[in-house]
Amino acid sequence: MSLILALDFGGTKLAAATVNAGSRDWLSYERRLQGENASANTDLEIMRSLMASVLQEKKPDAIGVSFGGPVDATTGTVRLSHHVPGWENIPLRKLLEEEFSVPCSVDNDANVAALGEYRFGAGQGYDSLFYMTVSTGVGGGWIINGLPWRGAEGMAGEIGHMVVDPSGPVCLCGKRGCVERLASGPYMALDAREALLNERTRSRGEILRELVGDKLELITGKVVSEAATTGDELAVELLYRSSWALGVGIGNVANLMNPQRFVLGGGVTKAGENFWAVLQRVARETALPEVNFEIVPAVLGDDAPLWGAVALAMLKLSTTPKT
Amino acid sequence: MSLILALDFGGTKLAAATVNAGSRDWLSYERRLQGENASANTDLEIMRSLMASVLQEKKPDAIGVSFGGPVDATTGTVRLSHHVPGWENIPLRKLLEEEFSVPCSVDNDANVAALGEYRFGAGQGYDSLFYMTVSTGVGGGWIINGLPWRGAEGMAGEIGHMVVDPSGPVCLCGKRGCVERLASGPYMALDAREALLNERTRSRGEILRELVGDKLELITGKVVSEAATTGDELAVELLYRSSWALGVGIGNVANLMNPQRFVLGGGVTKAGENFWAVLQRVARETALPEVNFEIVPAVLGDDAPLWGAVALAMLKLSTTPKT
Repeated sequence: MSLILALDFGGTKLAAATVNAGSRDWLSYERRLQGENASANTDLEIMRSLMASVLQEKKPDAIGVSFGGPVDATTGTVRLSHHVPGWENIPLRKLLEEEFSVPCSVDNDANVAALGEYRFGAGQGYDSLFYMTVSTGVGGGWIINGLPWRGAEGMAGEIGHMVVDPSGPVCLCGKRGCVERLASGPYMALDAREALLNERTRSRGEILRELVGDKLELITGKVVSEAATTGDELAVELLYRSSWALGVGIGNVANLMNPQRFVLGGGVTKAGENFWAVLQRVARETALPEVNFEIVPAVLGDDAPLWGAVALAMLKLSTTPKT
Repeated sequence: MSLILALDFGGTKLAAATVNAGSRDWLSYERRLQGENASANTDLEIMRSLMASVLQEKKPDAIGVSFGGPVDATTGTVRLSHHVPGWENIPLRKLLEEEFSVPCSVDNDANVAALGEYRFGAGQGYDSLFYMTVSTGVGGGWIINGLPWRGAEGMAGEIGHMVVDPSGPVCLCGKRGCVERLASGPYMALDAREALLNERTRSRGEILRELVGDKLELITGKVVSEAATTGDELAVELLYRSSWALGVGIGNVANLMNPQRFVLGGGVTKAGENFWAVLQRVARETALPEVNFEIVPAVLGDDAPLWGAVALAMLKLSTTPKT
C-alpha cells in the first residue's frame, strides 16, 4: 500500500496530510496559518515541521503539492506567489524530490482542486469538467479525457479574466467587466463601499451600512451576501451582477468546450439559493440550446487542494516507472 | 500503402478525393455544386457518382468524411444540416461502412478542418490549437494533446455564440452581441443595409452604396470589406467591429484554454491587413499578459475539410485493429 504525502501551500495557510492510496480517511493532518511577515523561507520552514509531524519518520511513496499561485507543472517550479514574497522561480518539486527521493508533482491550486473534485468530490465519473473557485479571485481548472489540462504553458483555466461586459467597471488586469471584476468577493465589497459613499444612492444599502456599524471598510463579499439575504437592495443588485457574470462565463465555456459538468467552489458560491438560481438560468440562456451541462457545488471545501494533491501524487505514481 | 477516400458534404458543394496515406498530392479529385432543390437523397446520389469517379473501381482502405452540420462523431450519425433538408439522424458512417466494408469516420466540418490544418496546414507541430472559420457563420474546432476535442456531446468549438457585447445587437440565437452576430459576413451585410436605410446616417456609406449601384440587397460581407478598403466610413466601422469581436473571443479563449496557436480561415479573414492588425491587438489586450499565443491564417482554404477528412481516416486506420 502506497503512503501519499499531500501538501497545500495556500495564500494564508499551510497544510500537510498523509493517506494510504485508495483510502478516503487521512492518517494524519496538520494545518497552520501563515504569519503576517510570511516569506517563501518561513513557508518552507513551517511546512518542514508539518511534514515531520504528519510523517512521524515514515517515508512517503509519492508527494503531491498544491500551490496557491502560478506553477510550471512540467518542471514543478513555482513562478511566484501573489500573496507571499520570495517564491519567484522556486524549484519546489526538485527541493522535495531531493529531500525524500520519491516522485513528486506540483501544480497550482485551481488545477489541483479540479483534480481533487474529479477523483474524490463532486466530479467523480465526469471525464470532462471545469472546476471554478469564486472567492477573493475567480480561477478555474480543467479535466479533459480524465486528465488535467493545463494549456500549452500551464495558464489554462483563467476564466476570471474573461470579459463579459466590455462597458463594465475596470479591473486590476486593465480590462473592463471581467468575470472576476464583477463576481469576486473583494470587488463586490469595493463596489458596495463606493455606492454607499456616493450621495445619490444614499437611500439604498441601509441594511448593509447597519451590518458594519457604518464602518464601510469592514464590508466584505460575505457581508454583501448577508445583506442581500435580508433584502438590502444594493446588496441584491451586486450579488445579482456577480451571479450574472458567472452565468455568462459558464455559458460561454459550455459553448466552447462542452464539458459534462461544472463544479463551483469558494466562499462567494455560498451566497444562497437565489445566487445559484440566477447563475443557472443565465448560464442556460447563454449556452446554445443543444449544449447540455450541469452546474453543481464543490463538496470538498477547504480540503479540495489537499485531496487534489493526493490525486496528483497517485497520477505521478501510476506514470513513474518502478525502479 | 493505404488508399484514403476523403468526402466533403458542404452546404453548397460536394467533393470527393483519393490520396495515398502520407502523400500530399491528390490521386483524384471531383467537386460538384449542389442544385437549388438539394436534399439528403440528392446529396447522397451525387456523392455516389463522385466516389465512383474518383475511386475508378479501386477499394479504399479507409474513409474520412467532413459534414457541414452537427454530427455525433462517436457513431458517425449526422444530426441535421442547416442548409439541406432530409439529413436528420442519417447514419452516414454506417451507410458508408456497409457499402465499402472499411473503417470510416465522420465529423463536422469545423472539427475536420481543424484536424486538416493541424496535420497538413498552418497548425503542423502545434499539439494544442484552436481553428476558427469566419464566413457565413463563425465556428471552431479543437486540437488538444494532438487529438480532436469534440466535447462531451460533440458540441465543443462554438465560439460563434460566445457573448462579447451584452448590449450589442440581437442574434438569431436569441442572445445579444455574440461573436457571430458581430463578425460574420451576412450579419455585417445586414447591419450595412440597415444603416444605409436609416436616414440619420445617410451621409455615411456612400462608397458602399455605389459599389452595389444602390441595390442594397446585393451587399455582402465581401462588399463591406471592399468598401472598407476604399475608406468607406460605415464599412470601416462594421469591419472594425467584426475584428474587435473576434479579438475579444480569441483573447477569452486564450485565457481559458491556453492553446499554442489559433488558425483562422474563412472569407471574412481575407479582409486585409487592418482587419488582422485590429484582431491581433484586441486579442492581445484581452488575454492576460502571461498568456502567450499566435494567431495565423489558415492555409488549406476550401480544401481544409477534404484534407481533414484524410487525417480523420488515417487516425481511424491507426486505431482500428487489423483483421
